[in-house]
Amino acid sequence: MPGAQTNSSWDVLLDVSGPGADPLVSALRTAIRSGVLAQGTALPPSRKLAEDLSCSRWVVTQAYAQLVAEGYLVARTGSATRVRWSGSPDQTKPPAPAKKAPRYDLAPGLPDLRAFPRKRWVDAIREVLAVVPHTELGVPPAGGHPKLRAILAGYLRRVRGAATDDVRICAGVTDGVFMVCRALHEAGFTQIAVEEPGWTRVWRAAERAGLEVVPVAVDEEGLRVKDIPGKVRAVIVTPAHQFPSGVVLSAGRRAELLAWAREVDGLILEDDYDAEFRYDRKPIGTLQGMDPHRVVLLGSVSKTLSPALGIGWCVVPPLWRHKVQGSAPPVLDQLAMAEFIEDGGYDRHLRKTRLRYRARRDALLKALGGAKISGAAAGLHLLLHVEPGTSTRMLIRYAERRGLKLVDLDTYRSSPGEPALVLGYGNLADTAVTEAVKILRSGLRDVEVVREPGGERDVALHLDPAADEQQRR
Amino acid sequence: MPGAQTNSSWDVLLDVSGPGADPLVSALRTAIRSGVLAQGTALPPSRKLAEDLSCSRWVVTQAYAQLVAEGYLVARTGSATRVRWSGSPDQTKPPAPAKKAPRYDLAPGLPDLRAFPRKRWVDAIREVLAVVPHTELGVPPAGGHPKLRAILAGYLRRVRGAATDDVRICAGVTDGVFMVCRALHEAGFTQIAVEEPGWTRVWRAAERAGLEVVPVAVDEEGLRVKDIPGKVRAVIVTPAHQFPSGVVLSAGRRAELLAWAREVDGLILEDDYDAEFRYDRKPIGTLQGMDPHRVVLLGSVSKTLSPALGIGWCVVPPLWRHKVQGSAPPVLDQLAMAEFIEDGGYDRHLRKTRLRYRARRDALLKALGGAKISGAAAGLHLLLHVEPGTSTRMLIRYAERRGLKLVDLDTYRSSPGEPALVLGYGNLADTAVTEAVKILRSGLRDVEVVREPGGERDVALHLDPAADEQQRR
Repeated sequence: MPGAQTNSSWDVLLDVSGPGADPLVSALRTAIRSGVLAQGTALPPSRKLAEDLSCSRWVVTQAYAQLVAEGYLVARTGSATRVRWSGSPDQTKPPAPAKKAPRYDLAPGLPDLRAFPRKRWVDAIREVLAVVPHTELGVPPAGGHPKLRAILAGYLRRVRGAATDDVRICAGVTDGVFMVCRALHEAGFTQIAVEEPGWTRVWRAAERAGLEVVPVAVDEEGLRVKDIPGKVRAVIVTPAHQFPSGVVLSAGRRAELLAWAREVDGLILEDDYDAEFRYDRKPIGTLQGMDPHRVVLLGSVSKTLSPALGIGWCVVPPLWRHKVQGSAPPVLDQLAMAEFIEDGGYDRHLRKTRLRYRARRDALLKALGGAKISGAAAGLHLLLHVEPGTSTRMLIRYAERRGLKLVDLDTYRSSPGEPALVLGYGNLADTAVTEAVKILRSGLRDVEVVREPGGERDVALHLDPAADEQQRR
Repeated sequence: MPGAQTNSSWDVLLDVSGPGADPLVSALRTAIRSGVLAQGTALPPSRKLAEDLSCSRWVVTQAYAQLVAEGYLVARTGSATRVRWSGSPDQTKPPAPAKKAPRYDLAPGLPDLRAFPRKRWVDAIREVLAVVPHTELGVPPAGGHPKLRAILAGYLRRVRGAATDDVRICAGVTDGVFMVCRALHEAGFTQIAVEEPGWTRVWRAAERAGLEVVPVAVDEEGLRVKDIPGKVRAVIVTPAHQFPSGVVLSAGRRAELLAWAREVDGLILEDDYDAEFRYDRKPIGTLQGMDPHRVVLLGSVSKTLSPALGIGWCVVPPLWRHKVQGSAPPVLDQLAMAEFIEDGGYDRHLRKTRLRYRARRDALLKALGGAKISGAAAGLHLLLHVEPGTSTRMLIRYAERRGLKLVDLDTYRSSPGEPALVLGYGNLADTAVTEAVKILRSGLRDVEVVREPGGERDVALHLDPAADEQQRR
């Protein structure tokens, strides 16, 4: 055990700046934590330390008392105050800074973040805070604020053909899937079917909830219901606009899926993905509306406004309602959203952005002229199929070096398949379409050239030569 | 199978109001869902229905096409369009309306909701939206926004003596406990010790995460560390101000608890409950600061601003950091909070409310004059011990009928014990102190009278007769 500290220069040992006891407490804590003052070290009498530090004795006794109460020091009558504590040094590091956003963003999954109605949102928050009773600023009800629940129920009935008076508010589709899958897990479910390819973030949520995900293939009519394995009794689907294939679940498959759910006494999780953005016709109504006892409807504003708002909803069948647990987003945000829907602002925002996305999609299709594209005239993304054998990995690296973010279809599959890119144009600036496609095209050309010597297969887009020529000019 | 519908008055059957195909789609959906149009029913030719409804034929063909796509109808060439679907009727009910707030609220767990800085919050949101790059409105990083993380780390180092550069943002202490307990569960932990009495909402969070909670008694020095059963390797404690006993964990117990954690290779979850409100001295620094490798620090603004904001934090030891998963609150709220701390607004709010709570506590103690009270001069609640044998249940009902909300100490115990009430004065209006105590006192008197005939034990507060007399005037 080290003896009494006899060093007379405590003002050197301790970096005390500022008046009062607080800086001394911090300095002593730091010295103890870092091992400068080891366990058992005796501190000088308060009078002595006060002299060294040119402060009042009161400051020192206050600091000693504080650190005794915190357990760093121990004081015994008739003996020196000593260091009690010996801990492991503090080695935490600050989190890594956020990644820089790409210059041109063709990653799927985001709406136009430039179009976020900033002023309207501040106004909505102000309007809410001007009238909300203080009693509603307490612990929020788990299922969400009754006002937003009622307004969303009306909205989903009107716009999405949902059959409900009872909507539960959550943080988004992933959060909702997690909550429902936890309830399934508690009820003894062990597996859940998912679409392959599909939105892997949702797969991960189901896995976090304790379920095994069972990928089931998607064809041109949507999920192949007949391929759901015998023992599986739950499924996650995106009927309105499958991600990432862009297929809409056919009327036949919808009926088949509902019949399946009744037969196996199962549950369908309907991720109402991209339902708001259909450019050729009115969007298909929800599956949930056809069987509210078998279908959970999940949606959010992440693809219409911003994922930063963290507002989503789920409509849960009556029998499952009390088994689904989780917390709702902050009350002020819920009330602002209610305000925004109620005064028609949300509908206006959707109409405006729908036109914008449609135009952007058309511009992108034109720029890609002749390339092999798939996906319905809906949503915020399309699939670009490239020649079999193409290294999409190389292509993505090539584009990344030039400031263009591309995403591989393989990201959304359980195992690699035919090479393709998922081009999300939601968050691509209108002015960036030409430049982004230029990089993409040159990537396809250059990657091809680079790979030729190795004798690997050619890489080529089915390019429209005229459009291509136009690009070069 | 029902035959072709021959009813000529389709305008009576279908409640179609408004122009265009949408109202007709809704009306047909409703008629099918409610069973008015049963499976197999043939719909009239579009020309006929258009005549009945006095609309264009185009409107009808559009509506039929939509419902065919949605799976409600089936169309075959050369045959009538028929109802395909037969589902179970929609029987969801709207959620129950929110409970009415009590006139006088002595329930613990809330800060002064009247003091919520409404204007300042709107300003903070406006300032954030004026400058935040659109790229930060995308999918929020799971651990929280780097800006709030850095600002909170500085705040916790400065104000709470925490040892960290890496704070994770979550929705609150309950959310943080759930996330950490899930990580413990994944790592093979099966049990967690909790304080008895304690904040049962936190117990429930640990249970939802799959752990068994093991209540361990609290005495005048805080958690009885020696009573933690041999196999338990994790514990949730409130060292700064135990809820609901009000005890501060003694220096000896702090050292004992840290030594225990090292010995069993365990983890301490430090709920930094009420640390901001200490009226007699500087608050005790965190346990986490003494051993950042063994202690998870959890805190939130729920008891300082409002639970409606849904902003909390946790500081997780390096070895556990990547095992803790969950999502952060909405980005705009995080940035507004960062703004509020950074410009000193949060500190000012705390100073102002601390003075207010101290005065309110003093007023409450004075009004309760002579009653048996316990709990340190800290936080937002105190314990009122009533005579053994008192029916707190009756007392609470009595008060409820008079608009006063009281909470039983038994709410926070695993089994009933000595009768006491937890009086939370955080959300009690200053002007309501006198009236609330008047109801409480008369309750104690009346409940006593009511129960005398039954020969049960007397119920009495140790009242100060002078103060009591003053009350009656």
